[in-house]
Amino acid sequence: MNDSAPRIGVFDSGFGGLTVLRALLEQLPAAEFCYLGDSARLPYGSKSRETVARYAVESARLLESNGAQYLVIACNTASALALDAIRASVRVPVLGVIETGADSAAAVSVSRDVLVLATDATVRSHAYGAACAERGMRALEQACPLLVPLIEEGWTTANPDAERAAVTRRVLQLYLEEAAARARTAGLAPDTLLLGCTHYPLLRDMLGSLAPAGMRILDSAQTTARRVQRELGAMPPTTTPASATTGRCRFLATDSVEKFQSLGSRFLGQPIREVEHIDLGG
Amino acid sequence: MNDSAPRIGVFDSGFGGLTVLRALLEQLPAAEFCYLGDSARLPYGSKSRETVARYAVESARLLESNGAQYLVIACNTASALALDAIRASVRVPVLGVIETGADSAAAVSVSRDVLVLATDATVRSHAYGAACAERGMRALEQACPLLVPLIEEGWTTANPDAERAAVTRRVLQLYLEEAAARARTAGLAPDTLLLGCTHYPLLRDMLGSLAPAGMRILDSAQTTARRVQRELGAMPPTTTPASATTGRCRFLATDSVEKFQSLGSRFLGQPIREVEHIDLGG
Repeated sequence: MNDSAPRIGVFDSGFGGLTVLRALLEQLPAAEFCYLGDSARLPYGSKSRETVARYAVESARLLESNGAQYLVIACNTASALALDAIRASVRVPVLGVIETGADSAAAVSVSRDVLVLATDATVRSHAYGAACAERGMRALEQACPLLVPLIEEGWTTANPDAERAAVTRRVLQLYLEEAAARARTAGLAPDTLLLGCTHYPLLRDMLGSLAPAGMRILDSAQTTARRVQRELGAMPPTTTPASATTGRCRFLATDSVEKFQSLGSRFLGQPIREVEHIDLGG
Repeated sequence: MNDSAPRIGVFDSGFGGLTVLRALLEQLPAAEFCYLGDSARLPYGSKSRETVARYAVESARLLESNGAQYLVIACNTASALALDAIRASVRVPVLGVIETGADSAAAVSVSRDVLVLATDATVRSHAYGAACAERGMRALEQACPLLVPLIEEGWTTANPDAERAAVTRRVLQLYLEEAAARARTAGLAPDTLLLGCTHYPLLRDMLGSLAPAGMRILDSAQTTARRVQRELGAMPPTTTPASATTGRCRFLATDSVEKFQSLGSRFLGQPIREVEHIDLGG
């Protein structure tokens, strides 16, 4: 444990935020992390703003009380529905992934029209629509509610049974066809596809073969990690006491630690050895 | 409000239990019901025994404190993982759907081998295996984790877009093929297919065309309703005070009431007009 290392809390409803943690680990080699997955109450993507805000605020407070000096809300649904509520409930800086996602699209889109794939709750919030509008772009927000369960079941190209991956490919195709029809009706010409859910990077290869030629596929993980690095560079040195945990990353989960280990390792891209169970009372 | 009418609490993690309520409403025309859907924390089917038990006990206590004299746990996962915990935490009789489901299979199976389709958590608990063994039958338990999200998204034969229903049909086919291969390996010859999740009756037509010819397809709704009727016939008349609610069925949900109305009506087979939001603190 290094007392001068920044301590970053990373929050997600479950496992998807581990794709963001992966980028943070690479980008901030000196930082220490505490990742909380609220796996007992996932998914957030089909639930109401009030419920998601309540869950996310409890989780953010727990990370702050565990010594986090900076919070990354590595969950699009929580970022879309609860960022203001989280910021109002903790004293440390809080970064969500919607703004960084919109930043990454703004950096590359030429047509200034962006297709955003996301959960039902994120789409209903129109958070991406607002973030894109602030950057002079138009967003076509497409809800893809079946992708999270398909990815969590492992029906991706990593599955040895190609027939299972073919189901996910078909579902993705149906969502993209729906989005294309809506884009035509709305007179939009998206040249950029933004992955508005941290699960979706696991479908990047499939998306690459299904999306129209020339469309750029982006997720917010890298942009988020660079933004954290930039902001932490400007932060004063830590004065809070060191936590009791050793190692560079501590993992907390509200449901089964075994499931977190097995499923989480796929998202992080490396084995997760130790997970602590935590009860948020819900 | 009729003081002599039995008051029955019906609990489910969300919407599926409404297929059981539907049978109860038909079978017990004089009873009054309070249905609680813990929609803020669904699905239970992918979560651990400890988490499911904690949620189910809180829900059962709430129904008891709202005047229920009899509880029906209309959720296979909660029945499989938490029935003992629920019974230990309330004073009224509690009926789960695993036993009644096994009863319905025992009444018709000739080969005494039963194929059970269920959530991942129900299958891992082997509750159906135990209930079938007690009745002299062998159960082949097949987890079908993608069916609940597909049904909740409405990708069934009721969907006007036949291509969406075709995805669900393909997923069901893959699960049935996996089950058939496992049955061959285990030397089982199931002649009965038991729907071990209260969502699955919405796929009954699809299952009818995919299951081997001659296989009986059963769910526990009717058997559960008949069992409640039989047991309530033997109960002493009520002495608890009448609740403040009018109407034959009161609906409580822990997440959005609008979503409960729209999605729930599909499961109940009739419109749900009034839903009360309730906070279980989770």
